[in-house]
Amino acid sequence: VVLVCVPPASIAPVIYWAMNRNLARTYSDVGSIKTQCLAEAERLGVPMARLVGGHPVAGRERGGPAAAQADLFLGRPWVLTPTPASAADALDAVRRLAAACGAVPVEMTPAAHDTAMALVSHAPQALASALAAALRQATPDSLALAGPGLRDVTRLADSDPVLWGQIAGGNAPAIAGVLEQVAARLSAVAASLRTAEAEAAFANLVADGNTGRARLPGKHGSRAREYATVPVVIADEPGILARLLGEAGLAGINVEDLSLEHSPGAPVGLCELVVAPEQASRLAAVLAERGWTVHPPSATVTDG
Amino acid sequence: VVLVCVPPASIAPVIYWAMNRNLARTYSDVGSIKTQCLAEAERLGVPMARLVGGHPVAGRERGGPAAAQADLFLGRPWVLTPTPASAADALDAVRRLAAACGAVPVEMTPAAHDTAMALVSHAPQALASALAAALRQATPDSLALAGPGLRDVTRLADSDPVLWGQIAGGNAPAIAGVLEQVAARLSAVAASLRTAEAEAAFANLVADGNTGRARLPGKHGSRAREYATVPVVIADEPGILARLLGEAGLAGINVEDLSLEHSPGAPVGLCELVVAPEQASRLAAVLAERGWTVHPPSATVTDG
Repeated sequence: VVLVCVPPASIAPVIYWAMNRNLARTYSDVGSIKTQCLAEAERLGVPMARLVGGHPVAGRERGGPAAAQADLFLGRPWVLTPTPASAADALDAVRRLAAACGAVPVEMTPAAHDTAMALVSHAPQALASALAAALRQATPDSLALAGPGLRDVTRLADSDPVLWGQIAGGNAPAIAGVLEQVAARLSAVAASLRTAEAEAAFANLVADGNTGRARLPGKHGSRAREYATVPVVIADEPGILARLLGEAGLAGINVEDLSLEHSPGAPVGLCELVVAPEQASRLAAVLAERGWTVHPPSATVTDG
Repeated sequence: VVLVCVPPASIAPVIYWAMNRNLARTYSDVGSIKTQCLAEAERLGVPMARLVGGHPVAGRERGGPAAAQADLFLGRPWVLTPTPASAADALDAVRRLAAACGAVPVEMTPAAHDTAMALVSHAPQALASALAAALRQATPDSLALAGPGLRDVTRLADSDPVLWGQIAGGNAPAIAGVLEQVAARLSAVAASLRTAEAEAAFANLVADGNTGRARLPGKHGSRAREYATVPVVIADEPGILARLLGEAGLAGINVEDLSLEHSPGAPVGLCELVVAPEQASRLAAVLAERGWTVHPPSATVTDG
């Protein structure tokens, strides 16, 4: 198997080059957009029976050899996009390569893959960037009122413009479709906000968002599940998190996740420990007994 | 001071009721929208000299007595919105009340406050919900490809529709203005994605988002600053985070923040420890020496 790992615009030419030299029996790639490069390969005259497009859905916001990780693919989906022309043994070879890297092979058509990525990756990038772009004209007073919500929504806005221009350019119609849908909904809500229907329109939007978000799979690829959070006040000093988690570990409680919330201008913060619902009250009791300031656990948080 | 803490629609009537009974010398409230309720108070004939609107910018996604926290306001902004009619001693009394709760009093006009909240709170809610709403029609195969980026952007979409309908209803024109701006940008990008300008338009959007997001203040209310992240592979078992953070604490290193990334279907995950840049390589060395699988630190992450 030859696995071509080059920038999107070079994938098809490099596959063509490698096939002409008969370097392997099967060819694949790791590009994050599939339709465009498979079409280009066909145009170039690549024997499509030996080509199975691939996209390991793993990666980081950092690149280069220093960011390499041997476990990067562990448990992550590796999408395979065979065409009707792909030979069964070629698909099987690439599937085994993905599995050998610890990934979970997932078969999709090239078009279905690109449509999915437009929705779950490319459009979210555009929304985060569009909202962050609106912060350019904000007064410093306004920005000082920003909380964790705005930071979450705009986190992706730190991404690289050049890379994202190339990604979007290779999947433009699918991304345009999602952005048109979302922009239309936002425009409709904005229009309603200028009428007597303001409250109902916004409530409907949030309710529809509840429904959509509940469909995201939860931790470890399973369906969303219920967790409980235990809020604990912590000082901003070395070792404090370790002491806190040490107490939880000694009690045999698995902390599934945690979030830290720093108070602006204050040397203390709030740490929310996320645990299984049946362990929350015991954890709170153990921590309180050991002198921590613990707030009442909440058992209504859904992971995702 | 009488501090009125009731749902938005009841704030002005309750202030009017309390003033008629002469319950105090100064009146304030904690509503998250200011213009509407001050106008209503004036309409009701409230003596505006004794009224100073307020909004402590703190709170949680959970309500009720069980979610109460004595340190909720610690270090958080508490916006005061005096009108030209407000008496100086009334403003001073409310300012001292905010300070007594540990908050940082910030003075703004009611209109400036509502404009700021539309941008940093209400519009982000709408964007998160609109994107999450678009997930309703997605195939399960598509949703299985969702990564942490989509989860960040849509996290707010779990919010309460009824509460958010009321909030949006009380600040509708300001929110509409932000949503119109963002929707127009998204529509323009979508249109460009259907032309030869696709790549440049998307790159420009992301670059503008970089600029806007860099303006968000960082931890503890300061300007954004540089951090380094040290990625460590961890097993999904009780006490593992405590052991990891314990090693960092023993080395005298303050972990500023951390993020956990679970691999779908795999019992291991990646923990990224966020520390001051000058401590990153020492932390990585200490952890590696103690047997942890540590990836090369990255010194290019900006907090915010």
